[in-house]
Amino acid sequence: MWGPVELGFPLQANQRIVESVGEGVTDLAPGDHVLPVFTGECKECAHCKSEESNMCDLLRINTDRRVMIHDQKSRFSINGKPVFHFVGTSTFSEYTVVHVGCLAKINPLAPLDKVCVLSCGISTGFGATVNVAKPKKGSTVAVFGLGAVGLAAAEGARVPGASRIIGVDLNSNRYEQAKKFGVTEFVNPKDYNKPVQEVISEMTNGGVDRSVECTGSTEAMISAFECVHDGWSVAVLVGVPHKDAVFKTHPVNFLNERTLKGTFFGNYKPRSDIPSVVEKYMNKVSF
Amino acid sequence: MWGPVELGFPLQANQRIVESVGEGVTDLAPGDHVLPVFTGECKECAHCKSEESNMCDLLRINTDRRVMIHDQKSRFSINGKPVFHFVGTSTFSEYTVVHVGCLAKINPLAPLDKVCVLSCGISTGFGATVNVAKPKKGSTVAVFGLGAVGLAAAEGARVPGASRIIGVDLNSNRYEQAKKFGVTEFVNPKDYNKPVQEVISEMTNGGVDRSVECTGSTEAMISAFECVHDGWSVAVLVGVPHKDAVFKTHPVNFLNERTLKGTFFGNYKPRSDIPSVVEKYMNKVSF
Repeated sequence: MWGPVELGFPLQANQRIVESVGEGVTDLAPGDHVLPVFTGECKECAHCKSEESNMCDLLRINTDRRVMIHDQKSRFSINGKPVFHFVGTSTFSEYTVVHVGCLAKINPLAPLDKVCVLSCGISTGFGATVNVAKPKKGSTVAVFGLGAVGLAAAEGARVPGASRIIGVDLNSNRYEQAKKFGVTEFVNPKDYNKPVQEVISEMTNGGVDRSVECTGSTEAMISAFECVHDGWSVAVLVGVPHKDAVFKTHPVNFLNERTLKGTFFGNYKPRSDIPSVVEKYMNKVSF
Repeated sequence: MWGPVELGFPLQANQRIVESVGEGVTDLAPGDHVLPVFTGECKECAHCKSEESNMCDLLRINTDRRVMIHDQKSRFSINGKPVFHFVGTSTFSEYTVVHVGCLAKINPLAPLDKVCVLSCGISTGFGATVNVAKPKKGSTVAVFGLGAVGLAAAEGARVPGASRIIGVDLNSNRYEQAKKFGVTEFVNPKDYNKPVQEVISEMTNGGVDRSVECTGSTEAMISAFECVHDGWSVAVLVGVPHKDAVFKTHPVNFLNERTLKGTFFGNYKPRSDIPSVVEKYMNKVSF
């Protein structure tokens, strides 16, 4: 049975300052500055202990868990009726209640109205490129979807020195803004009578070295995989697909030595990694 | 138009001793011991120069090229009619003609009747595991298909110290032999009423750390991908599929931080890498 749900990703500034902590919480204290993250880190499960995974067994993203974990109850109500939680953060409200594992404690000098974007989309896109696709200096990168996540993914290609960053979007107006994030060329699939992976392959002598898909469209996922070069390339899926989506390709596209991976939250562990991402922002470090 | 074709992978011992070399060949001389390899290495193209690829632009596996590259002619005939080449080696004949880029020069003391297996299946399977899947000590590995390639893939898991190696085959008689190559458990998909990936997932608390598919069956490829653990795992495709095969899966299986890759010839560069694999065999080095 579903009741009202407190929707939302991090939006409210005062949700990023701890007002009080529950029994047993020792990592945080009132007044701490934090970023709430939709996927958590318990620091004790096999995923948290693995260097490669951020998919915490206890606190990984879960859109169906509507209550606090330890007592299976909601902390919200309206007119005496419960309002349920959403994706661990419930950040459409002015005040919220969050599991300590979904809060990254950050430098209190960081401007909360700016670093809040590291709670979700920006870390997701930037991390997908720098942590997962890992383009080398001089390499070619295609980014599918130039929304906030895709722009961050492009930035994640610009910072390590990609030589060409090809933005792909169905809305050509996005190219202008995307240039600020390193996008050097633009392709609108609607402008061609052939699959966009063929267009990109022709532009790049066989394909790009890396691609990052930030749309959730299965078609874009397939294009993002098939537009990478044989022999050494990596394609990364970021967008969340429809529940009935099916990814299809000829297996030889794998045998030709392409790699396909996916990631949630750019493979960042929220509590362990995000504080240092904030520091890099504070110190203007180019990652 | 197709004529007779000289089929075959390396089988004849005297094909592994150079009888004569063509004009301009300086890397080999008569009397050299060599292993012919179906996919070559020109040492000059972008793939040969990349550390990650062995898919030489000039000499990569090609089942349609029936002639020598530089003059587009065959070197074989029978009763005055041409007999065509096959996959660069044409090794069903007693003597053959091979592009220098498809020959790995090896230690002349190596027993040709033994190291000949490094020309194809054994390097393919062993390399798929050690070079591409790269299991760590203590990890769990599933191997799909326990023919020669699959047995070599299992050996590639045993050598770096996998703790469990699960062999999967439709023929249960293969388990006994497979134990010699490190296989510790066996699953026959025919023994279950559910997909084998579910069986393996239940055996291993969520999936194996690595899987290597050595069958060419699309169904096995999908199972090999879906039986690996979320968060940190790698599945590797080795088997050559039917030309109309389609690999299908839900994209969330990627987003859950699984990696899928494929490989030809275990990612070994034939001329650069195979001589040292022969040396390791000679010195009984555990790779």
